[in-house]
Amino acid sequence: MSDDCIFCKIVAKEIPGEIVYADEYVTAFRDIQPAAPVHVLIVPNKHIPSMNEVDEEDAVLIGRMHLAAKQVAEQEGIAERGYRLVINTGDEGGQVVYHLHLHLMGGKKLSIPKYN
Amino acid sequence: MSDDCIFCKIVAKEIPGEIVYADEYVTAFRDIQPAAPVHVLIVPNKHIPSMNEVDEEDAVLIGRMHLAAKQVAEQEGIAERGYRLVINTGDEGGQVVYHLHLHLMGGKKLSIPKYN
Repeated sequence: MSDDCIFCKIVAKEIPGEIVYADEYVTAFRDIQPAAPVHVLIVPNKHIPSMNEVDEEDAVLIGRMHLAAKQVAEQEGIAERGYRLVINTGDEGGQVVYHLHLHLMGGKKLSIPKYN
Repeated sequence: MSDDCIFCKIVAKEIPGEIVYADEYVTAFRDIQPAAPVHVLIVPNKHIPSMNEVDEEDAVLIGRMHLAAKQVAEQEGIAERGYRLVINTGDEGGQVVYHLHLHLMGGKKLSIPKYN
């Protein structure tokens, strides 16, 4: 746990979060500034700042984050309709909180952004 | 391998693709319709239609896709500047090709899309 990390504090239940899934490895909670009708963040319980700090031994953990996202999509009733999973990394990727997190977004037809 | 899958054919080198990374488990190649200055797709070599068909035994494979994406970001010189990883699933998620793929996008400051 990183002492000044807001996501570590949500995982540890030191600050409130609307948790929708949790297990030994990952925690999922609603984004407080949703960018879609369904917007959930899935984080590893251990503090990893970003994708740039993920190493080989974290491969299973990354997989678990995605399996949790799939399960939350089912819980939220959007698995069959479809959804988008996003990991922003670093400044140009738009990362805001430096605790690795996977965005699950859905609940409507999502447009395809172009960045050219 | 699925006989009518374009990504399976790129993995098998039956049709051309600009491959930037490949190993026993995953293959990465440039998107032919890039939506950002750097736009690479990372796919599992085995045919999985979408995230909805991923199961527990695929957790490591999902992790390997992300580790490959991290490596390609380094190769492309965008790791430190930042990048975005995206998996579209199903119709509302904007999935077009039904062979699981991870989009790596970067090379400029990417805006944060809102879908509300």
